[in-house]
Amino acid sequence: MNTTDVERAVLEAARAARNAQPVLARLHRDTKDEVLLAMAEALVSSADRIVAANAEDLAAADAAGMEAGLRDRLALDAVRVAKIAGQLRDAAALPDPIGEVIRGSVLRNGLELREVRVPLGVIGMVYEARPNVTVDAAGLALKSGNAVVLRGGSAALHSNTALIAVLRDVLAAHDLPRDLIVGIDEHGREGVNVLMRARGLVDVLIPRGGAGLIRHVLENSTVPVIETGTGNTHIYLDAGADAEQAVDIIVNAKTQRIGVCNALETLLVHAVEAESLLPRIGTALARADVTLHADDRAAAALKSTDAQVLPASEEDWETEYLSLDLAVKVVDDLDQALDHIRTYSTGHTESILTRDLGHQQRFLAEVDSAVVMANASTRFSDGGEFGFGAEIGISTQKLHARGPMGLPEMTAAKWVVVGQGHVRP
Amino acid sequence: MNTTDVERAVLEAARAARNAQPVLARLHRDTKDEVLLAMAEALVSSADRIVAANAEDLAAADAAGMEAGLRDRLALDAVRVAKIAGQLRDAAALPDPIGEVIRGSVLRNGLELREVRVPLGVIGMVYEARPNVTVDAAGLALKSGNAVVLRGGSAALHSNTALIAVLRDVLAAHDLPRDLIVGIDEHGREGVNVLMRARGLVDVLIPRGGAGLIRHVLENSTVPVIETGTGNTHIYLDAGADAEQAVDIIVNAKTQRIGVCNALETLLVHAVEAESLLPRIGTALARADVTLHADDRAAAALKSTDAQVLPASEEDWETEYLSLDLAVKVVDDLDQALDHIRTYSTGHTESILTRDLGHQQRFLAEVDSAVVMANASTRFSDGGEFGFGAEIGISTQKLHARGPMGLPEMTAAKWVVVGQGHVRP
Repeated sequence: MNTTDVERAVLEAARAARNAQPVLARLHRDTKDEVLLAMAEALVSSADRIVAANAEDLAAADAAGMEAGLRDRLALDAVRVAKIAGQLRDAAALPDPIGEVIRGSVLRNGLELREVRVPLGVIGMVYEARPNVTVDAAGLALKSGNAVVLRGGSAALHSNTALIAVLRDVLAAHDLPRDLIVGIDEHGREGVNVLMRARGLVDVLIPRGGAGLIRHVLENSTVPVIETGTGNTHIYLDAGADAEQAVDIIVNAKTQRIGVCNALETLLVHAVEAESLLPRIGTALARADVTLHADDRAAAALKSTDAQVLPASEEDWETEYLSLDLAVKVVDDLDQALDHIRTYSTGHTESILTRDLGHQQRFLAEVDSAVVMANASTRFSDGGEFGFGAEIGISTQKLHARGPMGLPEMTAAKWVVVGQGHVRP
Repeated sequence: MNTTDVERAVLEAARAARNAQPVLARLHRDTKDEVLLAMAEALVSSADRIVAANAEDLAAADAAGMEAGLRDRLALDAVRVAKIAGQLRDAAALPDPIGEVIRGSVLRNGLELREVRVPLGVIGMVYEARPNVTVDAAGLALKSGNAVVLRGGSAALHSNTALIAVLRDVLAAHDLPRDLIVGIDEHGREGVNVLMRARGLVDVLIPRGGAGLIRHVLENSTVPVIETGTGNTHIYLDAGADAEQAVDIIVNAKTQRIGVCNALETLLVHAVEAESLLPRIGTALARADVTLHADDRAAAALKSTDAQVLPASEEDWETEYLSLDLAVKVVDDLDQALDHIRTYSTGHTESILTRDLGHQQRFLAEVDSAVVMANASTRFSDGGEFGFGAEIGISTQKLHARGPMGLPEMTAAKWVVVGQGHVRP
């Protein structure tokens, strides 16, 4: 297809989703949950077909020499398909955000005023080659009354096509328009470019993935975007922090899972603790195979340990490693730590380890990130951990939603005003 | 100045605002209110200087043959300066949104979780030559903890410069950074273009003004935008509506104030009422000097009246007149009315006049606008009328804020998590 064909096809897909959505906006929770459960069942009973489609993607990935971590995220088997189906059952179990009265009152003049939660409309999701995101996003969109236009990585084209076909068949079997769930993977990167300019057809675009993808969308989209994910996450170890807790939290934040946005990337250590506590932390991290990228003072303090230490450069302070690497810097005080965070943080999650009440208060007040923590692992910055039951992403922008986004963050508000012949004097 | 100079100057102004803002974020309400009241006083005592500066703008406006309505919005005298000062006193009287706990709980594992209201950071305001907006926006930004970069129309350059100077002097007198309030009028349209690309320095851009300005910002901004204002507003007159109420509401919605976004622009009349009620409405509107742009059926019904009737074209359905003009169309039923609104509404405000409960329910549920009404004038779609005490604009987009925006809509959220050594299992 040439550019014009792609443009026509993607705009048509977005328009079809837009035209289908009003039906969904008025569906009762019972029906939505019924459809979600039927979709879960259909995925499980179509597992063979889905795994076969996935095998095509895997063959292409192997031929292209895809990196092991990415390949693992792409791969499906019957067990994983069952797990993906489970996400739909989880979505069915969540409360329906639509119709919630956010605020309401009767005005002095008797006008009745209510602010009510309604669907956003059409959500565009742009993400990487992870077939589970396809189903998860479609399920959460359905539950929150939104049509969805899905663009997964082209490496997952066959898998996504198979999954979306199953979901659309279930919609049709329930007399709902298939176009509530639309895939545009076949149109490649050009398709994303068209989607980004489909203002009026798409209400919000949620890019999930690498920093490059997100920057591209932010700089070129006329559709409103929710920026997600990039987490150059910091912990500041204050003087006098609880030593045992500090070691546990830092090891947990760095190693409990490494490829995720709430994993620790830079450790700032108060000079006092460089002598006493940093060697112990270095030893514990060495045991977990973490490579430390240390400034001069941190490197000196770590010399006596068996930690693997490399010299840190400016680039290290800026890097979201998503690997067994950690930048380490010694600071003279809280102010230096706050300065460093102000300069290098991506506004995702930062945590202070301290026993000083004043320092905790200042850190929580002055760090301008979506999630600020005290004496806890950054790995808790997560919709599941927050009790949301589901998460469509973690917003690092300030508009609309900030931090983990659950179903209510996938909705808009609408004001309903009921009068009895009211005119404005 | 050449382009590079403008770019350097505007980015420097935005950076200065950004660097100043953290001080404001932590200011207590008492201090903020004190500063607002001092600003009000300073404006009144500087009224001569402000009116003199305004005279320069007016002289230029007269030389350029500015339209009377625009000139009136630009003009200041001592009485108007006092009224503008009053807006700051009103802002002082409003509750402080910062620090409000939006949600909070203790998780199963004992982690304390709070979602807290914080300032957005730096707000960019782009608006037309209305000096009162300069002061109003600065005051509401200050109260909500935000620094503000102001770009009013260049026709108000001298007035805005004088007003901003007064406000900045008061900041300095209270040991606060002058750069909490920054004006970039002198950099003209090129300055707006730079501001729109200042992502990372400016957190949100709020354009207020004509459709052209707003479209330009939406299409070119990399800074998140809140779309405001354009109101192609509809009333649907249902069969069997209360006749007296209908006449009053329609006349009120069209004529109570004409140059505003919540004024009525298109009236849709059920065929049954075209015979009985439309002539009466036409007569009442004729008395108020309203010109009707009617489709064939409406024109036929209006023939017997002294209403001034022109034939409606496609363009009339799309137009936000902001004048003593009203488009009128006869529809066969509610579905046709909903269709018309779906096609032409800008998503601002629509109202149904009816005595039919089912029709009211459908209209309120199916019309996808920021404000939907029954049996009330569209003129109530307003922050002041909603009891917000102040309004920075009316959002017609779905993200972040929808409908009238008060102080809480000028804030963001932040998650605060306090643990006691918590690690994720």
